[in-house]
Amino acid sequence: MKKEHKDQINEAVQAIKAKKKINHIYFVACGGSMALMMPAQYILDCESEIPATVYTANEFVYRTPKALGDDSVVISCSMKGMTPETIEATRLAREKGALTIAMSHIVGSPLWETAEYPIHYDWLEESDMTNHNHTILHCLIFNMLHAIAPNEKYERAIKAIDKMDEIFKANIEKYASQALDFGRNYKREKIIYTMASGGNYGPAYSFAICLLMEMQWVHSNAIHSGEYFHGPFEITDYDVPFIIVKGMDSSRYLDERAHAFCKKYSDKIVLIDAEDFDMKDMDQDLKGYFASIVVGVVLRGYANALAEFRGHPLTVRRYMWKMEY
Amino acid sequence: MKKEHKDQINEAVQAIKAKKKINHIYFVACGGSMALMMPAQYILDCESEIPATVYTANEFVYRTPKALGDDSVVISCSMKGMTPETIEATRLAREKGALTIAMSHIVGSPLWETAEYPIHYDWLEESDMTNHNHTILHCLIFNMLHAIAPNEKYERAIKAIDKMDEIFKANIEKYASQALDFGRNYKREKIIYTMASGGNYGPAYSFAICLLMEMQWVHSNAIHSGEYFHGPFEITDYDVPFIIVKGMDSSRYLDERAHAFCKKYSDKIVLIDAEDFDMKDMDQDLKGYFASIVVGVVLRGYANALAEFRGHPLTVRRYMWKMEY
Repeated sequence: MKKEHKDQINEAVQAIKAKKKINHIYFVACGGSMALMMPAQYILDCESEIPATVYTANEFVYRTPKALGDDSVVISCSMKGMTPETIEATRLAREKGALTIAMSHIVGSPLWETAEYPIHYDWLEESDMTNHNHTILHCLIFNMLHAIAPNEKYERAIKAIDKMDEIFKANIEKYASQALDFGRNYKREKIIYTMASGGNYGPAYSFAICLLMEMQWVHSNAIHSGEYFHGPFEITDYDVPFIIVKGMDSSRYLDERAHAFCKKYSDKIVLIDAEDFDMKDMDQDLKGYFASIVVGVVLRGYANALAEFRGHPLTVRRYMWKMEY
Repeated sequence: MKKEHKDQINEAVQAIKAKKKINHIYFVACGGSMALMMPAQYILDCESEIPATVYTANEFVYRTPKALGDDSVVISCSMKGMTPETIEATRLAREKGALTIAMSHIVGSPLWETAEYPIHYDWLEESDMTNHNHTILHCLIFNMLHAIAPNEKYERAIKAIDKMDEIFKANIEKYASQALDFGRNYKREKIIYTMASGGNYGPAYSFAICLLMEMQWVHSNAIHSGEYFHGPFEITDYDVPFIIVKGMDSSRYLDERAHAFCKKYSDKIVLIDAEDFDMKDMDQDLKGYFASIVVGVVLRGYANALAEFRGHPLTVRRYMWKMEY
């Protein structure tokens, strides 16, 4: 990880350490940037007693949680730093006395200027992925956790982060031919469900709403594996496609149960099993937390292949950036 | 409301009042019962600084939040009180020292026996709806809020609850012909999206996963109005149906913005505008909180009509109750 990123994270974490009390950590963003925050919120929920919640930015702005105030920490994110809702949520949080941390790819963007502690991340597929948004956020989270209360996983997590570029690239390579199979075999589908639980719900949500609905105009819905048997499973049929993620989190059982049922009744199951990931020599108890961000990177490869086979580039839009809304 | 329900709520609330500290309120259930809890969590988020989170039960069981303990309150719900995940979540919570409150239609059900403070609710469409799950839960929430810290809305909310049967029935009547139109005009649709925000996200989620996917085998996804412009809106087209709820919450603007855009590009918009509801003489500042439960009741009428026109009763299942899973 670049020194610039480490320094920015360190500055934010020192400010958190200086706080007498933290009543709530809010993750505030929109769409893909919001989905990015779900695995981070998940880590906090498992490792800390401080409440942490993810909000879509405009809900946070228009019906602000009562607990937001001097004791709160608000972490926001927007790639170009131009998302009006996220900027407004960050401004509002700062006005209410919260400690504001914002992640953006663009130094000096409106979001960058709005937050007290901005953190930069890289965004180029060929670059060192240790500097990308997911890894930067994981690094921030483990540093925060350790600053709030000594966390035994901290040093091992930081070592793991140093290997994430290698891990991401090994798995992109490993899943390259499966991604092509997916693109070829699913290019005619009008609807594709995704399903996951725990820290992997974020990448499953992102794949459903950003990659499929937004960038491919394919109908979708990210089903929580734990909710599947309480309604959604009745939609399962031989011709209904599901991408199912089996995690390495403690909620893996939920995914296994959903997959075992779903594959009996649908002939169109795509399984991403995190236990097959090449996680290098990562400690077992950290794999679940880091697998979530590998899932997102692997799924991106599936989206690239789908776009290629459908002749519909991921950059095509009919509304976004083309009109006022 | 029946005395039996009031007494059960009062017993739970006295136990909450006796607690020195509450660190977190957890709402734990599955599917429709989980969706029921979303408007309740929303009220707490707006009115109290105590963190409140909704979990699908098995996620709570398999990757239990670290903060769960003696200072926690866990509210669970299952109609028949037989949902294994919800029973296990309640058992686990009680074992960890949390104060457990469970809502069930069946007195003496396994869930009922597992919780320290069980609360009964009625479930017959023709019965006094003041005793149904949504109203009972709202009553519990306002009593809890007032027990934790004096809440100015409390007495007015309790008065409003007394009129809910009248309000529900007036709106079922008011929307009867629109429900029939929906059933007739949308009976051929293979996919119907729902969209809402704030306290209304719960009924929109419930309609998507229980009424459409489970009971009608119609593809669906409950889109948050605030997320619509950050991915999902690209799926909008002239022939893509959306049921959009405009709330009376402070997040109404999000719904208005989504509706204004969506109706320009889809010819198949069904609008449920809570401002059109007959809320009798309810105070303006309470209408948003109670409109959420009216939305669910009105949408139930839409589901009944859809089932009728499709010749597919809401009671039909292909997997649920028919096999092990």
